[in-house]
Amino acid sequence: MSDVLVLGCGLLGTSLGLALQGSPLGDVTLRDSDAVRELAAVERGAGRLWDGRERALLVVAAVPPSAVAAALIALQRKDVARTYTHLSSVQSQVQAEIEASSPDPSRVVGGHPLAGRELTGPEAAVSDLFVGRPWALCPGPGSAGDAVGDVRALALACAAVPVQVDPQQHDRAVALLSHLPQVVSSALAGSLVATAVSSEAGLEVGIGRLPVVLAGPGLADTTRLAAGDVALWTDILTANASFVAPLVAGVARALAEVADALDRVAAGPDSSAVAEVEELLRRGNAGRATVPVKRGELAGAFGPVRVVLPDRPGELARLLQAAGDAGVNVEDVRVEHVPGRPTGVVELLVETAERTHLADVLVSVGWQVV
Amino acid sequence: MSDVLVLGCGLLGTSLGLALQGSPLGDVTLRDSDAVRELAAVERGAGRLWDGRERALLVVAAVPPSAVAAALIALQRKDVARTYTHLSSVQSQVQAEIEASSPDPSRVVGGHPLAGRELTGPEAAVSDLFVGRPWALCPGPGSAGDAVGDVRALALACAAVPVQVDPQQHDRAVALLSHLPQVVSSALAGSLVATAVSSEAGLEVGIGRLPVVLAGPGLADTTRLAAGDVALWTDILTANASFVAPLVAGVARALAEVADALDRVAAGPDSSAVAEVEELLRRGNAGRATVPVKRGELAGAFGPVRVVLPDRPGELARLLQAAGDAGVNVEDVRVEHVPGRPTGVVELLVETAERTHLADVLVSVGWQVV
Repeated sequence: MSDVLVLGCGLLGTSLGLALQGSPLGDVTLRDSDAVRELAAVERGAGRLWDGRERALLVVAAVPPSAVAAALIALQRKDVARTYTHLSSVQSQVQAEIEASSPDPSRVVGGHPLAGRELTGPEAAVSDLFVGRPWALCPGPGSAGDAVGDVRALALACAAVPVQVDPQQHDRAVALLSHLPQVVSSALAGSLVATAVSSEAGLEVGIGRLPVVLAGPGLADTTRLAAGDVALWTDILTANASFVAPLVAGVARALAEVADALDRVAAGPDSSAVAEVEELLRRGNAGRATVPVKRGELAGAFGPVRVVLPDRPGELARLLQAAGDAGVNVEDVRVEHVPGRPTGVVELLVETAERTHLADVLVSVGWQVV
Repeated sequence: MSDVLVLGCGLLGTSLGLALQGSPLGDVTLRDSDAVRELAAVERGAGRLWDGRERALLVVAAVPPSAVAAALIALQRKDVARTYTHLSSVQSQVQAEIEASSPDPSRVVGGHPLAGRELTGPEAAVSDLFVGRPWALCPGPGSAGDAVGDVRALALACAAVPVQVDPQQHDRAVALLSHLPQVVSSALAGSLVATAVSSEAGLEVGIGRLPVVLAGPGLADTTRLAAGDVALWTDILTANASFVAPLVAGVARALAEVADALDRVAAGPDSSAVAEVEELLRRGNAGRATVPVKRGELAGAFGPVRVVLPDRPGELARLLQAAGDAGVNVEDVRVEHVPGRPTGVVELLVETAERTHLADVLVSVGWQVV
């Protein structure tokens, strides 16, 4: 019996297999409907081929949202594992399908690591994809406690930070924090190839005829998401359409209003139009201040606890487990890689009020806090 | 007589003073209407205080776009320098003001280094702000050739890459490549603080009530520009309103359409609505492919020439000058800083077809190509 059976050997599934190597869940079997990808993942060292019968502690479906429920239910009918989870970017719809058709919904607990790359496929997989990233655990109302524990252990084995939210709360959050930025970035990048011709001004735009070398780093940042996989994102946005649609409409309205204000500014002095432009920028400042960028950005609320970490597989997972045992919620993790040194230092970001408590507990169980 | 008189000791002016230290234009005088900033810039080592009379080869106005023309014309009337330039993000309007009121428009050549930080003021200034960044040179129809040469020399002294475009072409380009991303980023970030309540769905959003820890790096990237200075960006967007307005309106329309498509998807199976979502993402992919991100991204067209660079002030400027003398257009520059080593390696990105020619010429004049 293996620790984890990973279904789907794309970027996430293969990275998961790589991340688990050397962890307490290090015996990984792999399965993909595409034999080439399956072999590529084995070749990368993500695990061994699944023989179609061997049982596992956990099954993880690393397949597109629309394929998750059917894949898990088929294996659950064969009683292949104790607990079933997935890595889907959208949770409510999968959860509804599970509750409607699973032989035992209590053993299925949704999960979603907030990690990714612009690249796809097993070749792009990396073992540290999940390190320090939040991993949403999304139990349904009937989920068994030990099944939630199994999925939490999976996240910890990958050195991710488990965050428990219900499926609806998760989907509302990612609609705003992930899916809306994706749509906006795609629309912005799309305007680089659209050719708009304004007859009055004789204005022609379209990046082909402009000195693209004048692009600053801001354009690269704002359009980075637009490189995302079309099929995957169509699937995600479709599955979460009811939460995403009103948010996109809101940004569309804000932009239409500022376009109108800029038109009035261009037509001649108009202080109320200028004030509208200024107000958009001011709201942008306020919104940006709520974005967690790096530690210290949300000043005051959080602070770091720095711990010496031996350079052995599984140590970071052991540390995060110890923090969890101490009852402290770790908001973010940064590992300082010092090449050629046998130890490193890891920073755990926690609420300022809990720093001393966490440091004390860690020292008492043998960690070196610096 | 100094080499350069810098008017305005904010981020750009002070960084310019720092960048010029040790270059062929290393004798810098400084002037700001705010005595505190002026002294802070001197303290940082950006130059010495201007006494109000000393002449300079070049005057550089590092002040907001709306203040540039008046500042330069006042000094030109006192005949303080041979050549006058500025660092304005918008060129046409300044150029029109110069042509209308300057005692000699032929000596004023607009410039715009595509460089910046989210921070402002002399404290945020850094000496390498312009290294490898494009620096637009925007002569008007009557600009004197030697005045353009003076401004080109200024860009090279800062190790920037001069790119000559006319003022209108510049403003069209930055409207699309810089100002549109700013507006879109501000609108997106603004939606994080807006509270939208949909009565049917009971949907309430607003980042305060959501687990913000679920934000991925995509949100941080897409909203980074939204932290920009409100007063400065109001000035820039106002000055370039006629080019920016139709672009913003175009993105607003694209978002309104996809919001409508997502609404239809949420209402029930609708393959044409799904196809619209997919089409937006596909256009985003195509647009993103036109964005110069780093070398190799625009695959095939460009390639690097790697040159050993002695760690002495002015060497990078000398190298870029040599590339210009060889008739080769340098698209991008990356300096590899190796701490503690007396030399570094610089990569010049040039058209693939010109790599061998450039390497040969550089070797023939004494550079070590690796």
